[in-house]
This record gives sequence, C-alpha cells and structure tokens, in this order.
Amino acid sequence: MATDTPRPHPSISDVGEFGLIRRLKRILPSSPLVVEGVGDDCAVVRLHGRLLLASVDVSIEGVHYDLGVLAPQQAGWKAAAASLSDIAAMGGTPQFALVSLAAPPETPAAVIEQMYQGMVSAMSANGAVIVGGDTATLSERTLIDVVVVGEAPGGRYLSRRGAQPGDLLAVTGRLGLSAAGYHSLSTEGGSEALQIYHWRPHPRVLEAQWLVATDRVHAMIDISDGLLQDAGHLATSSRLGLDVHTGAITIAPELAAYAERHGMDPLADFALGGGEDFELLFALDHEGHEEVFDDFRHQFRTEIAIIGRFTDEWTGVRVDGEERALTGYQHFRRPG
Amino acid sequence: MATDTPRPHPSISDVGEFGLIRRLKRILPSSPLVVEGVGDDCAVVRLHGRLLLASVDVSIEGVHYDLGVLAPQQAGWKAAAASLSDIAAMGGTPQFALVSLAAPPETPAAVIEQMYQGMVSAMSANGAVIVGGDTATLSERTLIDVVVVGEAPGGRYLSRRGAQPGDLLAVTGRLGLSAAGYHSLSTEGGSEALQIYHWRPHPRVLEAQWLVATDRVHAMIDISDGLLQDAGHLATSSRLGLDVHTGAITIAPELAAYAERHGMDPLADFALGGGEDFELLFALDHEGHEEVFDDFRHQFRTEIAIIGRFTDEWTGVRVDGEERALTGYQHFRRPG
Repeated sequence: MATDTPRPHPSISDVGEFGLIRRLKRILPSSPLVVEGVGDDCAVVRLHGRLLLASVDVSIEGVHYDLGVLAPQQAGWKAAAASLSDIAAMGGTPQFALVSLAAPPETPAAVIEQMYQGMVSAMSANGAVIVGGDTATLSERTLIDVVVVGEAPGGRYLSRRGAQPGDLLAVTGRLGLSAAGYHSLSTEGGSEALQIYHWRPHPRVLEAQWLVATDRVHAMIDISDGLLQDAGHLATSSRLGLDVHTGAITIAPELAAYAERHGMDPLADFALGGGEDFELLFALDHEGHEEVFDDFRHQFRTEIAIIGRFTDEWTGVRVDGEERALTGYQHFRRPG
Repeated sequence: MATDTPRPHPSISDVGEFGLIRRLKRILPSSPLVVEGVGDDCAVVRLHGRLLLASVDVSIEGVHYDLGVLAPQQAGWKAAAASLSDIAAMGGTPQFALVSLAAPPETPAAVIEQMYQGMVSAMSANGAVIVGGDTATLSERTLIDVVVVGEAPGGRYLSRRGAQPGDLLAVTGRLGLSAAGYHSLSTEGGSEALQIYHWRPHPRVLEAQWLVATDRVHAMIDISDGLLQDAGHLATSSRLGLDVHTGAITIAPELAAYAERHGMDPLADFALGGGEDFELLFALDHEGHEEVFDDFRHQFRTEIAIIGRFTDEWTGVRVDGEERALTGYQHFRRPG
C-alpha cells in the first residue's frame, strides 16, 4: 500500500525492516564499549583493547528456508552461513556461535539433529564452533537463530562507510547463482548444480581478511539482500553516488544456460536483485587496484571483478548511468 | 505418553528438552576454545587468555510470555532478564547483547519499540548494552531471542559441577514469587505487587560475583526451571545426593497471604516447583559458612538461607529425607 500520509500507528510492514531498525537505533543508549552498533553487518565491541565482532541472523521456515525443498542439514548450513558471512563482511575471524532453535513438539528429534549437523559443518568450515544454545517450542514452524562472535585481526575491520569518490566498486565470485538455485528448487526440471549455490553458500572469510590487510579497501558489505540493494547500502553509508556497470558483471555459464532455458534474463532476473550470494562487495582505491587484483588472484581461486565507480557528484545508485529503483529483499514490507 | 519401548523415530516431545540437549551435545565437536560448552547455564570460552561467558534465551509469545497479560515492555524486560541471569549464575559480568526479534507484519511498530525499551532497561540495570540484532517476519506470534556476552572477573566462574559432600545448599531471595505473580496475572482479583515479580525479575549479578570471590562456593545455578529441578541439576552435575529441607525455606508474607486467599499451598504450589525466580542456588562450604552469611548480609539487602545439604551416600534429590519426583518446567515434554 503506497500512500503519502503516514499512518498514526504504523505497523512494522508500514515502516519496513530498515525503518524499524532506524526506530530501534533511537532507543539504544550509547556506550564506550560499542565501536559499531546496530545498522552495519555486525557489531564491533571493544573489550580490553581488543575488538570483538558479533552478528546475528534469524532464519524462519517458510520465510528463509522451506523444509519442503531443503533437507534439514541444508537449512542448517544456510542459516549458519548467513551469520558467518556478516563477520566475513567486516573482515573478521569467526570464533564461536550460539544457536537458538524453536520447533513444533512433534518434530522428529532427527530433524533437529540434522539441522545442527548442517550448522556444525558450516561453522567448522569457517573455523568456528557452537558453544551454546537454547531450544523451545514454537507450534507452527521451525526457527533457527544464529549468533556468531569473532575477532578483528590486528584490530582492523571494514564497515559500510568509508568509500571515497573515485573508488572502484569490486565484487568477488559470480552473482545471481543463489537466486537461480532457489528458483530451480521450486521449478520442474530444476538444476541440482545450481541448487547447491542456494543452500550451501561459502562466506568469504579468508578473502575478506586479505582485502582488509591490503589497506586499499575503504568499505565493504556482503551481498545478502541483492547486488543493487547492498550497493545502495555502501553508497548511502558513505554519502556518495555509485554507478554500477552491468556490462562488467560476469554471468556464470550455468546461470546463462538456466535463464535461457526458462526464458529469463540472467542479469535482471537474478544477478542484480537476487540475494544470498554472500559475495563481498567493496570500495577499492583506484590507485594501485591492478596490483591488488593480481595479488588477490595469485592468492585465491575466487573470481574478482570491477563493476562500478563511486562519485561525489550525486548520491544514490545508478545502473549504467541511469537512476533506477533498487530491487532486493526487505523484511516486513508488503509489495508496494 | 509413558511407554517403556523407545519409539523408532522419536519426536522432540518424546525425548524432551534435556534429552534433545544430550543428543545435540554428541554432534558438537570439541575445541580448545571451549572451557564449558552446551549444558551449563552459559558457555565459557577462552579468548587470548581471558574467559568470555555467553548465554542465549529464546522467549516465545504464548509459551514464555503472553501479550494479553503483559505489556510489551514487561515482556522485553523478562526476556532480557532470563539471559542476563544465566551470566549471573556463573558469577559473570554481562557486557553486551544481541537481540533477534520476529513478529507478524501487522504488529504495530510501537509494540516492537516498547519491547526493546524493556530489554534496554534490563540491560542497563545490569551494566550491559544491546549492540546488534536482527528482525524478521513470523506470521503467528512474536518471538525474542537474547544473547548476552559477559566476562568472568579475574578468570573465575562457577558451574553446576563441583559441589562437595557435606556442602550446604543455600539460596538467595524468596522463592515462588514469580510463579505466584504469573498465577495472579491470569486470575480474577490478582495482586499487582506479586505480578511484578513475574515480569521484572532481577538477576543476581552482583551477589553472584561476590559469592564467587569468597572461594567458599563450589557450584551455582540460577532458579529458572524451579527449585527442585534446578537443585537436581546441581546434584546430578556434581554426582551427589541433595536433601532439601522445606522447613528452612522462607515464604514471603505476600505469597502466604495470596496462597491462603486462593486455597493453595505456598510451598507445594509455588516455592518448590515454580520457575523464573532467577534467584541463586549454590553449594556452600560447611566450614566458615556463618562468616560468609554475615559478610553477605552486610554487603547486600538480599536475603540468604540454608535450605539443604549435599551427600555422597546416595544420589538424586530428596525432600525432607524422602525421594520425590522433581517438578519443574521442561520444554517439549507432554505431561506424562
């Protein structure tokens, strides 16, 4: 429902996820402990001169995962990866996790065990360990809430703020694969090779730490809401404009083939708006960027590409020079 | 449903909360980081030689709180206090918290803000600050998941293990008030003075730290499931027997009056099985216990009493010398 007059008692779907976060930020008191609080990918807390990073992601059956199409292990991996990726996005090292799990009483114990196995695998793959948790009854569906606590190596981390005019927008990996995998899961004759991108994302923990250490990256985010929306977060937080060059976005061959088979556009339907790729999107110093790219490619098998540029001549996100409504996922919002 | 033959595919209500925790513990890998893992009130993690404590408590509308009888601020305070009390139970100092909040889209934004205000108040009262969170859509009801991270001052903490034969069982405060408050909330002509004990529990953070520092306390827990059940956790974890002397339990005058008015027994109906008092229950060295009590009373206004004794002559919990089924709350379990 689009209306110009704000309602007297707005619901959370009226204000949207980001509106709600803004309201909650106003309630939270400041503290010398808090280096970065609510609003970035994860919180940064100073404890005895060291910086701890902490992120939380709640995953709800029917919203974030569907046990009709995902196995419990897959849902567990995906839930854990989302929170791990928030630590990665700041350049942190995940250390330990706490997991709350709610489920209907009739849920087989084996299903809960398999969800844990998926979470344990995702944590182990990223050097973290589950140290505690809680369980409770939720009649209608399962729910997984994952908190990951990590560290900022050497006290250095990146936030969404800090991009400079002239910085390049760079991205790791290939985009749209998770969205195509999700589409494929609910489509006749879907592609198993694509589906794994949806349920088994790999947070870019090592790549992010390496990027922070170069001192050439000024701001970073992980792609959870979709390229354009997360690009918007970088631009807004840095108070700059950002032009995304779609011609520079590498489309994976399997995504191109899948899109063609289903009469869809790999860029518009998947790569630009599709969330949960958990790739890194970052502002890279223009000076010496070739060297950073060369070194990165020497270090990792992960792809890396320049797909845009920051400017102080205007604000917001443009796509190939044109202003455009951002597409991406926002909780609570009704389609307007 | 009580049966002697285990089902081939048990549900989580078949295995119960504690059975599920035992199963999940088997899945979790060990780690040199983890000093105390899943199973105690909170996890203890070693990071750069310092001990961090981490606890999580999920609160679900209709299970842990009822917005028909509690204001959103009250539900928020109660949810935060449960997690803070787990840090207190180990003698820790709460530092920061992350909060996940799920709610139906039509929930007024003001309700969510008020829940946060309740949580912020409970955190502030205990020296902690909310540093991050997540929000998501849950169609059927609201849900609050609170993680608190704290520290063990001087690297010292208490767990449920470690009670010695001959130790005294001691308790802070007065028991059954939260359960009576809850009863009163859903009863015609209820007592507002009692209700506040239900929704505004005060975690015993300072008292617990003081007790740890005496070196005379060997094991500790907070009363969240009910006196007898939590006494059972102390006894089982310490592999000892524990005799609870009901005559030594102080019944608050307002609880006695309320029980009499409703034809109930303050001890059997409230103090022994009622959960969420969040008082400290601990094993105190018999030697010099009078001195500890004198010093405690000098330091705090909080009451303190000896209500039992540990033994190695048998195991389990006895009440006034008699074996007795433990009563208390356990998630998932159907009444047998």
